[in-house]
Amino acid sequence: MIIEAGKTVVGFIGTGVMGKSMAGHLLKAGYEVVIYNRTKEKAQDLITEGAYWQDSPAQVARKCQVIITMVGYPADVQEVYLGSQGIIQNAVRGSIAIDMTTSSPKLAQRIFREGLAKGIYVIDAPVSGGDVGAREAKLSIMAGGDHTIFQTVEPILKVMGRNIVYQGSAGAGQHTKMCNQIAIAGNMVGVCEAMAYAKHAGLDSATVLRSIEAGAAGSFSLSNLAPRMLANNYAPGFYVKHFIKDLTIALESATEMGLQMPGLELAKSLYEQLAAQGEENSGTQALFKLYVAAN
Amino acid sequence: MIIEAGKTVVGFIGTGVMGKSMAGHLLKAGYEVVIYNRTKEKAQDLITEGAYWQDSPAQVARKCQVIITMVGYPADVQEVYLGSQGIIQNAVRGSIAIDMTTSSPKLAQRIFREGLAKGIYVIDAPVSGGDVGAREAKLSIMAGGDHTIFQTVEPILKVMGRNIVYQGSAGAGQHTKMCNQIAIAGNMVGVCEAMAYAKHAGLDSATVLRSIEAGAAGSFSLSNLAPRMLANNYAPGFYVKHFIKDLTIALESATEMGLQMPGLELAKSLYEQLAAQGEENSGTQALFKLYVAAN
Repeated sequence: MIIEAGKTVVGFIGTGVMGKSMAGHLLKAGYEVVIYNRTKEKAQDLITEGAYWQDSPAQVARKCQVIITMVGYPADVQEVYLGSQGIIQNAVRGSIAIDMTTSSPKLAQRIFREGLAKGIYVIDAPVSGGDVGAREAKLSIMAGGDHTIFQTVEPILKVMGRNIVYQGSAGAGQHTKMCNQIAIAGNMVGVCEAMAYAKHAGLDSATVLRSIEAGAAGSFSLSNLAPRMLANNYAPGFYVKHFIKDLTIALESATEMGLQMPGLELAKSLYEQLAAQGEENSGTQALFKLYVAAN
Repeated sequence: MIIEAGKTVVGFIGTGVMGKSMAGHLLKAGYEVVIYNRTKEKAQDLITEGAYWQDSPAQVARKCQVIITMVGYPADVQEVYLGSQGIIQNAVRGSIAIDMTTSSPKLAQRIFREGLAKGIYVIDAPVSGGDVGAREAKLSIMAGGDHTIFQTVEPILKVMGRNIVYQGSAGAGQHTKMCNQIAIAGNMVGVCEAMAYAKHAGLDSATVLRSIEAGAAGSFSLSNLAPRMLANNYAPGFYVKHFIKDLTIALESATEMGLQMPGLELAKSLYEQLAAQGEENSGTQALFKLYVAAN
């Protein structure tokens, strides 16, 4: 299959905050885009921009050579791919599906195998970069699956991201995303505790950041999320509830591999505590509240 | 006091790996430098470069208007400042001492007070940037104490560092350094667990880094220490034993402030486990070994 704007029909299932921006870039690049979303209103802008609406994932799957999915939880991925109205049951032989949801590596491997049995090729390609990365087409995309298939769909991925890396066989994209989330989790705990310490010690936290952010303590989270903590800005860049989903997948996956991760376990339990306090729809920087409130 | 190269006599107590480079910069800048170190051989290079050797901290203190200390542990700081052969008992009234050791904020406050009672001004000014930062005069210096005294010694600090920030009253420099170490501690756990996960999942860790280091998981440690872990290079940039010292101070200090830090506690216990395995003289990236060995 040769993918070409103006010729290839691309399906997009899941046009939420991220998916909407991503599908929008495909439209602007000249692709014919066929969409489905659980809540139709959220797809209205894309329809106005020229996307074709379909009433089910099955209908999208039947009409497209390439189908992209960007849904919520592993359970949604499972239904969209493996359900009776799903992609594997309904896509045309030879078509390619790309799951860009952050989901379970094990599920990605299962979908890959079941797809293969039906002549449908599946790539797992979760992203990082959040809503801003999606809007600016600057997502980092980490892909797993067949290498030739990856190369086939690379032109489409390049429309949505700019750091597109093939990580290996099916599930490798999801595994890489888990590495990303694990590193963030440990760092968020460190950043929150450092900022809580600064506050308790009576320091000027912004001045502390000037001393530490350019050195060995430096990180994306310290430079981008610590200032939001200090400004009491807990608006979601990335939701607490979604981060808990990711950390749960990572921990399950690690446990299956026989790997103990006390740091990840701690971060997950702290975020669960935070969610239990009604913060599941706050941004991940709200973890700071746990330290401010509890002390 | 006006500090000027060629006129001001600067004492330097503690010419180990860091202190040697720092005192060397002062010599090159034209300061007369008087030194003392517990092990004289380690001071030989500086003596050759023109530094004057003295046989005790007391002798250094008596001869210098400004005395810099860069020793090992809080117990060493206490002895060098508060002992009978120490700076506070022996320095000339009106002189200024700068402790650049990473040490206890509480001890820094005590030394400041005892100094003041004798007419000796003390600044706490720990650094980050490690041996490379010291060698290249690129240290980040975080200072606490009297603001006017800080401004007086700033020209000397500028010879050794380039991100020199006044953080507040006595102890504020040490408190800021604790924030730095707390942030690093959490992040090191995250980075090690992410790399251990990558290894267990059968990913190519270097390729994983390509996907994740430029995004939200990005950090100094991920970019600089993870590659060393993957290359089995555990040579010390920063020693495990010194990191444990710092985390111990941070945890004691937090406990005094009534602040709970489960992430810091976990990191400290993991590093202590690592030290117990004979790794206290390895670099902090050796924490990775705990995950590779235990799993």
